Amino acid sequence: MDQPVLPGRVKYDSQGLIPAVVQHATSGEVLMVAWMNAEALLQTMESGQAYFWSRSRGELWHKGATSGNFLQVREILVDCDTDTLLLKVIPDGPACHTGAQSCFFRKLEGLHAGRIVSDH
Amino acid sequence: MDQPVLPGRVKYDSQGLIPAVVQHATSGEVLMVAWMNAEALLQTMESGQAYFWSRSRGELWHKGATSGNFLQVREILVDCDTDTLLLKVIPDGPACHTGAQSCFFRKLEGLHAGRIVSDH
Repeated sequence: MDQPVLPGRVKYDSQGLIPAVVQHATSGEVLMVAWMNAEALLQTMESGQAYFWSRSRGELWHKGATSGNFLQVREILVDCDTDTLLLKVIPDGPACHTGAQSCFFRKLEGLHAGRIVSDH
Repeated sequence: MDQPVLPGRVKYDSQGLIPAVVQHATSGEVLMVAWMNAEALLQTMESGQAYFWSRSRGELWHKGATSGNFLQVREILVDCDTDTLLLKVIPDGPACHTGAQSCFFRKLEGLHAGRIVSDH
């Protein structure tokens, strides 16, 4: 693992946001993807619980504030372009507002393994 | 797992793009995050290898075309809002252009487990 990245080096998009992938720290399941602004990242780092920027509501969003299902952040990784974050978390409950453990509970229709010719 | 989502139901942003998280199908490691437009998704579904839209180059990007490290797509999942994709893949080689297995090879400085008060 390379040198850690300072939070000030994180690159936000033209709207001041960066995508954050949330992964279960022990099972490895990808739970959700949300967006952070600088304030959300700061609050996350200070509290150890995930904060995001709600694009639909236009406000800071402390994940779990209404459901009780907070995300306890164990580690934050940064990608090679410094423009995407990966949060490794222990969730207090289902991460999805539907009650599902993960927001990715549906397959896309039409990709069939049989159409893949080979692994290599 | 709920009913599959038809590709035509996928929601693209104002620039016609949708973020795609790429996860190793067996290890669960998150390898990279990239963007797809409708054409990239179609090519991915037809070929079984990951195509993206390169925002920096402004062109369709067949991942691995130059490096040889194609991503063999095993499954595509869609999130609850239908605006993020999760590709489960078997990579032919390192997913990152730096040669790292994953683009997420650096930690963000400043989040210390000791600052997290409890798991619950």
